Amino acid sequence: MRYELYYWPTIQGRGEFVRLPFEEAGADYFDAARTKRGMAMMMRMLEGRGVSYPPFAPPILKAGRVLISQTANILLFLGPRLHLVPAAESARLWAHQLQLTIADFIEEIHATHHPIAGGLYYEQQKREARLRAADFLKNRLPKFLGYFERILGGNAKRDHYLLGSRLTYADLSLFQTIDGLNYALPRAMARSGRRYPRAIAVHERVAERPRIAAYLASERRLAFNQQGLFRHYPELDR
Amino acid sequence: MRYELYYWPTIQGRGEFVRLPFEEAGADYFDAARTKRGMAMMMRMLEGRGVSYPPFAPPILKAGRVLISQTANILLFLGPRLHLVPAAESARLWAHQLQLTIADFIEEIHATHHPIAGGLYYEQQKREARLRAADFLKNRLPKFLGYFERILGGNAKRDHYLLGSRLTYADLSLFQTIDGLNYALPRAMARSGRRYPRAIAVHERVAERPRIAAYLASERRLAFNQQGLFRHYPELDR
Repeated sequence: MRYELYYWPTIQGRGEFVRLPFEEAGADYFDAARTKRGMAMMMRMLEGRGVSYPPFAPPILKAGRVLISQTANILLFLGPRLHLVPAAESARLWAHQLQLTIADFIEEIHATHHPIAGGLYYEQQKREARLRAADFLKNRLPKFLGYFERILGGNAKRDHYLLGSRLTYADLSLFQTIDGLNYALPRAMARSGRRYPRAIAVHERVAERPRIAAYLASERRLAFNQQGLFRHYPELDR
Repeated sequence: MRYELYYWPTIQGRGEFVRLPFEEAGADYFDAARTKRGMAMMMRMLEGRGVSYPPFAPPILKAGRVLISQTANILLFLGPRLHLVPAAESARLWAHQLQLTIADFIEEIHATHHPIAGGLYYEQQKREARLRAADFLKNRLPKFLGYFERILGGNAKRDHYLLGSRLTYADLSLFQTIDGLNYALPRAMARSGRRYPRAIAVHERVAERPRIAAYLASERRLAFNQQGLFRHYPELDR
């Protein structure tokens, strides 16, 4: 089956958490963001016309006749099909739990620059963003990164990934989150690196995987920018 | 198997989204929030001592030896076991997608009174809460309720629930969300009722189900209060 991914064309955003598993698995996928026709199809899906399972927001995965949305739900579906999660139910639930915690983390990262309203510009909520970002750096970033660090520390010595020795989609998502944080909050991350060495090592290990390295070097990988989830505002990165 | 639910003792919060399926299914469950010993056990789980799948935050479900956290993940696991979701994979993914959208909705409801930091008091972010709540009432509440209304409207005439004629855990979660909104934002909801008649009807239909009605009338159901997800601040409910 050829999977089809529908997402906004100009940002990595949440779509990137679906692209990375496709790239790691060497899957053949249609990336609607790269075609005009694909964008028109996405808009029709969002309007819900002739759609059995209408999405609330992108990313949207089309697999045969089934539409699936919500990033973590897409990964729940793709994980076993792309061999990026173990077969046992308990392991799948554990990977999904980690993914949902990453979803919460990402939402809080987004809120550092949009604490009042997603529909307003950053410049219209700059004062509040400073307050929210300060709390995020002091309390939330250490809580989330500390959690993943603790899990990695609890694994056996040669288990370098979140679920053990084998890479899962949760590791790809942790990679993407740390990659985005490095772009958005470079000063905070330079300081934090020492405190979360195992999490940072997952980021490096994923970046070096041959297919991911090839993807990151390709034109398919958009650069981070000031419209996405992860944005670099130096005043928020004290 | 006797399920065990671990959650904070003084609020409905996210734990209530797990209690409602237990109550609807007539399941025998241990509710740690009602015992001293249960709270001590939860704190140990949160510290991660001797735990294979450490939770990031409650609610936490213990099913035999497996610990599961993240509300939507717990419902993904319980849904088929409590017969509160159809057997087909596509239907399960659809129910889960709706649940994840409700999770996003709840997060935004919480942010109306805590836009800057979960660790600060409401009184310390009152000015920002007014801004966030105004945007929520204008843009987000209609977007979320309109989405569920559209899904219910797309079903066949005699299908009164989100997935069709049979109740699923997603309906229980929609009930709980509307119930909380009625407490937190009564003026806005009194106005909105007319615009989302099908969603409001799901709330009424769930409240009348015999086991749910018995639960709501029992001492097991905590009252909404000013420490939970849903809080009533008249100044946010213009």
